[in-house]
Amino acid sequence: MAKLSTPVAGSAPAEPELDGVFLALADPTRRAVIHRLGVGSASVGDLAAEAAMTLPSFLKHVRMLERSGLIRTHKDGRVRTCELDRDRLGVVDGWLAQQRRLWEERTDRLESFVTGNPETGGDATADERNES
Amino acid sequence: MAKLSTPVAGSAPAEPELDGVFLALADPTRRAVIHRLGVGSASVGDLAAEAAMTLPSFLKHVRMLERSGLIRTHKDGRVRTCELDRDRLGVVDGWLAQQRRLWEERTDRLESFVTGNPETGGDATADERNES
Repeated sequence: MAKLSTPVAGSAPAEPELDGVFLALADPTRRAVIHRLGVGSASVGDLAAEAAMTLPSFLKHVRMLERSGLIRTHKDGRVRTCELDRDRLGVVDGWLAQQRRLWEERTDRLESFVTGNPETGGDATADERNES
Repeated sequence: MAKLSTPVAGSAPAEPELDGVFLALADPTRRAVIHRLGVGSASVGDLAAEAAMTLPSFLKHVRMLERSGLIRTHKDGRVRTCELDRDRLGVVDGWLAQQRRLWEERTDRLESFVTGNPETGGDATADERNES
């Protein structure tokens, strides 16, 4: 069990907006809406029909997606149109990238530990390894 | 409002495992655990202490993470150790990549529509649209 003597550098920021985004994505109907809006805006009525869902049930999903910031809606007369906010999905990308950086740093540290070369820990890597 | 005459090609697969993964990630404590395990395995006791949480409360998070497949645990004597399954986070990457492909295809179609060049637009599509 690898235990660090120091806590994780900077630790994980709370990023409350991530809660809403991940929660919004934790449902197949809502993911299907995100997927569908990826090809273009659509009315709530059309989306509900595609989801084979009653409008009131479907509206709950729309509201949750809207609260998460993943979609925006606007009303034109009697039609409410939904539009994807692609940038919002970027927070998921950002979080994943943050985890990946951490794993890579860890791999570097393990490598420098195994090779006994403390210099390996940063950028420089394979060419400094002298496996004798 | 761009409306497709045909439903989204292939539509979005349901991928039930995504529900559990996204739900598991929709909580700051659980994300912090994922983050922490990114630097190495840790015991449930240590993780609970780092989360400043009682063991019973913390165990609920551990179980949810385990069910989602994001972590694995194993018991050594009286100590239960948690380990990250990085591959499981890959399903999130996969889903995001799928959405991105869709947006790029759409951008191609829009481009071909704007330039009036049907060759620009992926497979067929744009030239089939005759909005009169």
